[in-house]
Amino acid sequence: MKYLNGNITPDNLKRLSTVELSRLCAEIRRFLIKTVSETGGHLASNLGTVELIVALHRVYSSPRDKFVFDVGHQAYTHKLLTGRLERFNTLREENGLSGFPRPSESEHDAFIGGHSGISVSAALGLAEAMRLSGDKHKVIAVAGDGAFTNGGVYEGLNNAGKSRANILIILNNNEMSISRSAGAVSAYLSRLRATRKYYRAKLNVKGFLGKTQAGEAVKTAISRTKRIVKNVIYQGNLFENLGFKYYGSVDGHNLTELTEVLELAKMIDSPCLIHVKTKKGKGYKPAEHNSGEYHGLDKVKSLRGRETFSEVFGREILALGKNDEKICLISAAMKHATGCNYFNNALPERFFDCGIAESHAVTFACGLAAQGMLPVFAVYSTFSQRCFDRLIHDAAIENLRVVLAIDRAGVVGEDGETHQGVFDVAMLSLIPNFTVFSPASPDELRDCLRRALYEVSGPAAVRYPRGSIPHGRSLRGKIGNDFRLFKKRGNKKLIITYGRTVHRLVGGEADTLQLIKIHPLSDGIIDVIKGYKDVVFVEEGIKRGGVGEFVASELLARGWKGKYAIRAYNGFVPAADTEKQLSLILSADTGENEQT
Amino acid sequence: MKYLNGNITPDNLKRLSTVELSRLCAEIRRFLIKTVSETGGHLASNLGTVELIVALHRVYSSPRDKFVFDVGHQAYTHKLLTGRLERFNTLREENGLSGFPRPSESEHDAFIGGHSGISVSAALGLAEAMRLSGDKHKVIAVAGDGAFTNGGVYEGLNNAGKSRANILIILNNNEMSISRSAGAVSAYLSRLRATRKYYRAKLNVKGFLGKTQAGEAVKTAISRTKRIVKNVIYQGNLFENLGFKYYGSVDGHNLTELTEVLELAKMIDSPCLIHVKTKKGKGYKPAEHNSGEYHGLDKVKSLRGRETFSEVFGREILALGKNDEKICLISAAMKHATGCNYFNNALPERFFDCGIAESHAVTFACGLAAQGMLPVFAVYSTFSQRCFDRLIHDAAIENLRVVLAIDRAGVVGEDGETHQGVFDVAMLSLIPNFTVFSPASPDELRDCLRRALYEVSGPAAVRYPRGSIPHGRSLRGKIGNDFRLFKKRGNKKLIITYGRTVHRLVGGEADTLQLIKIHPLSDGIIDVIKGYKDVVFVEEGIKRGGVGEFVASELLARGWKGKYAIRAYNGFVPAADTEKQLSLILSADTGENEQT
Repeated sequence: MKYLNGNITPDNLKRLSTVELSRLCAEIRRFLIKTVSETGGHLASNLGTVELIVALHRVYSSPRDKFVFDVGHQAYTHKLLTGRLERFNTLREENGLSGFPRPSESEHDAFIGGHSGISVSAALGLAEAMRLSGDKHKVIAVAGDGAFTNGGVYEGLNNAGKSRANILIILNNNEMSISRSAGAVSAYLSRLRATRKYYRAKLNVKGFLGKTQAGEAVKTAISRTKRIVKNVIYQGNLFENLGFKYYGSVDGHNLTELTEVLELAKMIDSPCLIHVKTKKGKGYKPAEHNSGEYHGLDKVKSLRGRETFSEVFGREILALGKNDEKICLISAAMKHATGCNYFNNALPERFFDCGIAESHAVTFACGLAAQGMLPVFAVYSTFSQRCFDRLIHDAAIENLRVVLAIDRAGVVGEDGETHQGVFDVAMLSLIPNFTVFSPASPDELRDCLRRALYEVSGPAAVRYPRGSIPHGRSLRGKIGNDFRLFKKRGNKKLIITYGRTVHRLVGGEADTLQLIKIHPLSDGIIDVIKGYKDVVFVEEGIKRGGVGEFVASELLARGWKGKYAIRAYNGFVPAADTEKQLSLILSADTGENEQT
Repeated sequence: MKYLNGNITPDNLKRLSTVELSRLCAEIRRFLIKTVSETGGHLASNLGTVELIVALHRVYSSPRDKFVFDVGHQAYTHKLLTGRLERFNTLREENGLSGFPRPSESEHDAFIGGHSGISVSAALGLAEAMRLSGDKHKVIAVAGDGAFTNGGVYEGLNNAGKSRANILIILNNNEMSISRSAGAVSAYLSRLRATRKYYRAKLNVKGFLGKTQAGEAVKTAISRTKRIVKNVIYQGNLFENLGFKYYGSVDGHNLTELTEVLELAKMIDSPCLIHVKTKKGKGYKPAEHNSGEYHGLDKVKSLRGRETFSEVFGREILALGKNDEKICLISAAMKHATGCNYFNNALPERFFDCGIAESHAVTFACGLAAQGMLPVFAVYSTFSQRCFDRLIHDAAIENLRVVLAIDRAGVVGEDGETHQGVFDVAMLSLIPNFTVFSPASPDELRDCLRRALYEVSGPAAVRYPRGSIPHGRSLRGKIGNDFRLFKKRGNKKLIITYGRTVHRLVGGEADTLQLIKIHPLSDGIIDVIKGYKDVVFVEEGIKRGGVGEFVASELLARGWKGKYAIRAYNGFVPAADTEKQLSLILSADTGENEQT
């Protein structure tokens, strides 16, 4: 390629003309379409930010100016322009490039970016540190409109707006977020964007740019940006109210317009927000027209066709909801990915998509429950971490009947450290009054969901893995039990496990105990375990605080004298395929897994 | 008292004239001043909401209309008016009234209210459940301006503003929050409040009230509320942008004005927000003039004069900060309570109060750390629960050097279930790369803080209890160690503990092992424990996921065959004095503590 090759750097890019940069953008877009369909990853959102990121690198100088991306779904172009073109085909592979910004991967990634809603807070921290050390460079946070449904962005804006930080927030408004944007802010942004009768700017240029040192340069810039300034909605909007200079909306695919407004913001050393309008999937017709489907692409499609746990959940909660009008379903911007679409289509009155607002979702569910409804919140394991305090304070103390349907529980493969579902068991089990189920098959999932809704008197979770069952073998034993023992006569060795790993462990030399209700454990389970002399607990989750440690303490407290080992994760689990990640705990070595 | 007596109920209150209600308010105010100075609790904030709550009960009918308070700091008057006058002298006592709203205490408490930022989400849940069941009553959330610095309120507003819920948000603006309100929203509310040139309402009365069925009643109400409607800032404010009908600001101590605006809101069945201006400590001069000091009153002042752990921390972080200009200190609206005031007074450039925004605080700290600063976030244990995901994703994955100074770790006495600091150890220990210290004395606190800042290469926490050391006995042994063994010759029984409980346990029949760095534990500690035959782990924290379980699993994995028991909390710890709460785990019984 003429522009997108080993010579492209933030510095070299600055020497290109606008026409050349346009060609660079076209090359990037072609490269992304070709590569991401092979590597897997986020295509549509990255196609939407090509010009924006090129313009940012044209105007600002990474790594001296800092770029923070509110989730890396939009940062691939940034990776390509900052020395990672050659390795881009390793995206999301073991030892390859992360699908998200990682400071440990590149000095151009100023902050980690796997979870949404954190960019403004992180950028403010970077900017205040730079201000304290006299560094005049700017920190730029790029956040999608989806992130603006998260309270974290608001907390960040609230603090940044009052600060003296040299910070620029780019609101990348593609009106899509992950599925459809939820909430009033989304509607507000649409109104703001749709406004064609822009107020004429009553900008006091002197006051406005008073803090900058430039003289003639400023006047020139003002003249150049006259058209943009006209578009400034100068008063009374949400962001102005929070203390930001606001510019928008700007065409996010027009390099000239982007460059001009970014140059303007560069002259201001106080908090600014630029509202950029982009098109998700821009330049690739299939992704433009169905950007939801192209949001995240799986590299390996081998399981396609087999029903995923998400689909099983989605169909079952619909069936339950049709029979019980108390059931409500809540999603946090993950309607399709968690299988909530079936329920939403059939029972829209009782479906609530609250945006990327997991804390709200739990408390909202508690409000529903307090009025006698049966709320179910479908959420990825990794994102359930945001609800910890709400689960304790709002749900558990008053023992409200809310159900979490925890999707992507366990390791998740290529998304890597930021998205592993390995903490939910330890997190939920330490909360008093909580019941946790970990089904290993579609039948068990359906059964556990029913039990969580109708047999448990307080908060409960049903957790299940990403994708479908790798080995389709069906398990003997009655549905509805808390556990199942797969036994051979006279065996003294026992493997305990829960979730999908049971399929890999049943049928070996040892007896296998499958836990289904994994918290709290009944005395009956401990009694079964006590009958063995050699026990290995295999846990697809973090070791510390896991069920394996609890069982150890129970066995010891009851005077059991056997041999005991836990095979679980001892640290963050890096990107790799799921099989490789599972092999870390499934290996023949019965000693404690020391992987970190 | 003539009005505040056993006959006062929400229904009876409605029969009183405005003059009589004013007298009721005066009686309530006298009662609160007298009683709260005896029981302890929150005086100033409750004095500010007397008229507001009386007016709410005059216009709305609890429990059919639902009241949700964003923390009970402002709900005492509500308790007095809803059947809890007689028991009010048991406030915050064992088996007495909770200091916060509790649905299990009264049908008039629609939702629990110990932590801030949850009211709008909870109210929306209640309201949607009522809408689905055809219940036309209103849900009212009362939230202070402090709560508006929390992202949770924003998530709630964002979802409520777009809903069809019959919900009314009262923004109780006393411009104080817990210490001083932080952030741009606070400044914005001040501007909104200060505006005297109110826009003339261009209210389209028909459109505005089109959904109500009332005819003449509406016209009468409109006429009565003309003065208020004039005060409507009808366009472009933050709340309007989020989809709310906005009224304000209203004098929160004027019963007539309050009644009129509440009656108006009653006729609207879509989301409304009323901005009420109140004075914290109203009617009690000492509290009006120093409402910070009167925010929370301790019943027992017996420890007064002895330096608290918070003060030790506050002076030490100042001393460290003076010597190292990389150190930054962050508070989440708890500057005085956590001892941050010393640092703030001397080094204001490096002090950041971010409002009730603990998630932001952690990510902001990570941003500072990513630029080489040494941030310390001082936070109550119970509120640190809000940061869980940020600690995992933002701090731990990239192993950033942020320090949490966790105040009120362990049981906290009269605040009860909602505020116990019993989850932080389990929560932090399950996060990879985290180091946790639990000092038991001022000297140890100073040492651990220094180690957390300078010896640990990743995120760390130093946790210490509320108040000062109950028993001043000094402990032998070198400062700077990870643990200390208090040993008698030939003893085979060992008690392991950490934090303040060590002072109660050292010197008994058993040897005592005091853990100081409680996570991760060094092999040396396990080796010491292995030398004993009978071990009891006493843990001032939740049992599940605690250090006691971890030690059990280590002992078992290493083939240890002794007797082992854990004494820790197995459930939520209700209000009582701290000594009583500690006695639950300190009792002579060596069996597992089954308190729930």
